Amino acid sequence: MLKRFLVPEADQVLVSEQAARAATQEIFEKMGMSREDAALSTDVLITSDLRGCESHGVSNMLRNYIAQYKAGRQNPRPDVKVLRESPVSATLDGDKGLGIQVGPRAMTMAIEKAEATGMGAVTLQNCGHFGMLAYYTLMALEHDMIGICMVSAGGRLQVPVFGSEPVYGTQPIAWAAPAGKMPPFVFDVATTQVAANKMMLTRRIGSQLEPGWITTLDGTPIMEPVDAPNYGGFYMLPFGGTRENGGHKGYGFATIVDIMAGVLSGNGPGFVAEASNAQFVMAMKIEAFVDAAKFKGDLDVLLERLANMKPAKGHDRVYYAGLIEHEEVEKRRREGIPYHREVVDWFNSTARELELSYSLP
Amino acid sequence: MLKRFLVPEADQVLVSEQAARAATQEIFEKMGMSREDAALSTDVLITSDLRGCESHGVSNMLRNYIAQYKAGRQNPRPDVKVLRESPVSATLDGDKGLGIQVGPRAMTMAIEKAEATGMGAVTLQNCGHFGMLAYYTLMALEHDMIGICMVSAGGRLQVPVFGSEPVYGTQPIAWAAPAGKMPPFVFDVATTQVAANKMMLTRRIGSQLEPGWITTLDGTPIMEPVDAPNYGGFYMLPFGGTRENGGHKGYGFATIVDIMAGVLSGNGPGFVAEASNAQFVMAMKIEAFVDAAKFKGDLDVLLERLANMKPAKGHDRVYYAGLIEHEEVEKRRREGIPYHREVVDWFNSTARELELSYSLP
Repeated sequence: MLKRFLVPEADQVLVSEQAARAATQEIFEKMGMSREDAALSTDVLITSDLRGCESHGVSNMLRNYIAQYKAGRQNPRPDVKVLRESPVSATLDGDKGLGIQVGPRAMTMAIEKAEATGMGAVTLQNCGHFGMLAYYTLMALEHDMIGICMVSAGGRLQVPVFGSEPVYGTQPIAWAAPAGKMPPFVFDVATTQVAANKMMLTRRIGSQLEPGWITTLDGTPIMEPVDAPNYGGFYMLPFGGTRENGGHKGYGFATIVDIMAGVLSGNGPGFVAEASNAQFVMAMKIEAFVDAAKFKGDLDVLLERLANMKPAKGHDRVYYAGLIEHEEVEKRRREGIPYHREVVDWFNSTARELELSYSLP
Repeated sequence: MLKRFLVPEADQVLVSEQAARAATQEIFEKMGMSREDAALSTDVLITSDLRGCESHGVSNMLRNYIAQYKAGRQNPRPDVKVLRESPVSATLDGDKGLGIQVGPRAMTMAIEKAEATGMGAVTLQNCGHFGMLAYYTLMALEHDMIGICMVSAGGRLQVPVFGSEPVYGTQPIAWAAPAGKMPPFVFDVATTQVAANKMMLTRRIGSQLEPGWITTLDGTPIMEPVDAPNYGGFYMLPFGGTRENGGHKGYGFATIVDIMAGVLSGNGPGFVAEASNAQFVMAMKIEAFVDAAKFKGDLDVLLERLANMKPAKGHDRVYYAGLIEHEEVEKRRREGIPYHREVVDWFNSTARELELSYSLP
């Protein structure tokens, strides 16, 4: 993650993984989730915070979820229905459950199908927010599988290349593969120039957005550094930005995500479905193609080459997707998660408001 | 395709599809391919030229293939072996055949598996050049399937973000989905800022490369417009370019391609396999997830929204991946393929040299 998204040291309060989990679990249960669903949802958020992906952890998301439950827009006890199923595939209706609540079950189903047949893919319509996509792909790794996840998240944020109107949300995509002795490859990106949640982080932290990240409301790219505007005051560009710099590639991947998650699930394109998010998850068993030991050994060769390469002038280190996050998990498990003090204050005032038992340091 | 890659009108010679096919077929047969394999390989190249993707058609590639056959580095009669197979998957050894010769058979196998089970994926190691990846994904569309293709193409061109040494080739990726009344979505991109073949096109055409497309040999990005240097005199940046502009996303997708095509096929990472290219193809039957008619109707809604959108200031039109290529096929079938006169001269001198019967206008 770029430095601009990190909580400044002076504002950090270290909270143990256990304390953060316990507080989050209590909140989800208070919102009406079963104990088991609350544990799943908590695991998605805290895994995100442990990986240094605060943008998708408790800091931004929990207060939104609470507001959605209070407004009755989210169902804490969804009755998930199987709309279609085969030995390799399924389509589920999430019944307005949170994505972080229902999505892990969709990935478990994909993994079970891949265990039995070699591949499993599940699409999931009619859900709320899915959190950090890396979570779902990480689930596949311990089974010696490749994990894939995409989410169609509405259609009011991202404009197509040369376009003046939004069609997509951030439409993120994640892809992970297990290595042997090296930390796994875990790739997880928005198909916009920046994740929407990260934009909101810059406001808490006081940093700015880069040229070519967002547009004015007529689709014109803003080509100087700016403070993040409020939602509704801007649109986002696909990654790459300008056409010459590959914006059509970001736009193409956003379309792929909208097709695989939105259209293939029956949820519809993001700009039509709007309030309902949709997910595509897939697991591929490595042994269906090649010995898992050979695969992991070959991937070690690649990842070691990347991680040990001499950096270009002006840089300290070459890393690959998932490497820094892996190191961050080890550090944060040991030292605690560095939340912004404003987030810790919010947790504690929420405990008082909702009459919960936790108290963060 | 950007204007800089188009053949200037004054240098164009219009050649009919039939004449281009007949000439190419003769050349492949002369190189030792069976009649059937020559027809398959010809179809990959001419489909590329019809779609306006000259970079991957006969203009750049045929003379390379002939040189490779003459040097004995390519096997015109490969004995393709099945290394592993399941109802949903297979891994093939291409026995040093050309990618455009063996790759279509791998995709046919994936489609047959998807027809039977819902999904089919095939990896293919030990091959030559695969041409335009869109070709393989297009094969899936008439079966109401989504098509995916990736190719690991060596490791001497693309440097990782912040890196000083090349690890990947252009590591391209393609993804296609069928619509109803709209032309299909067909996405096909290099994970570098530009396809290597397109760089070579700029030299014939006399145009330049953009800032942030390539690096010097110590990995330092070249940030002003330059003429395309010779192979060996530069490295390429992942799409996105700089880290702030999303270069880590291009780098991540390049890694995904190297894993799915190179490592999963057993060919090994691109920088290790070097001379052997490797492919991943996949077909997903839409009916395994949702009614194909609903899928195609929903995709029409999305594609119409994109194609009919008011463009941002300074632009004529919004398009989606595959739209212009679809229109170009109709035009070129009618009017002929606009080859550079230098390419037509090469065809005719090759006919004399190899004692072939064709003669282009």
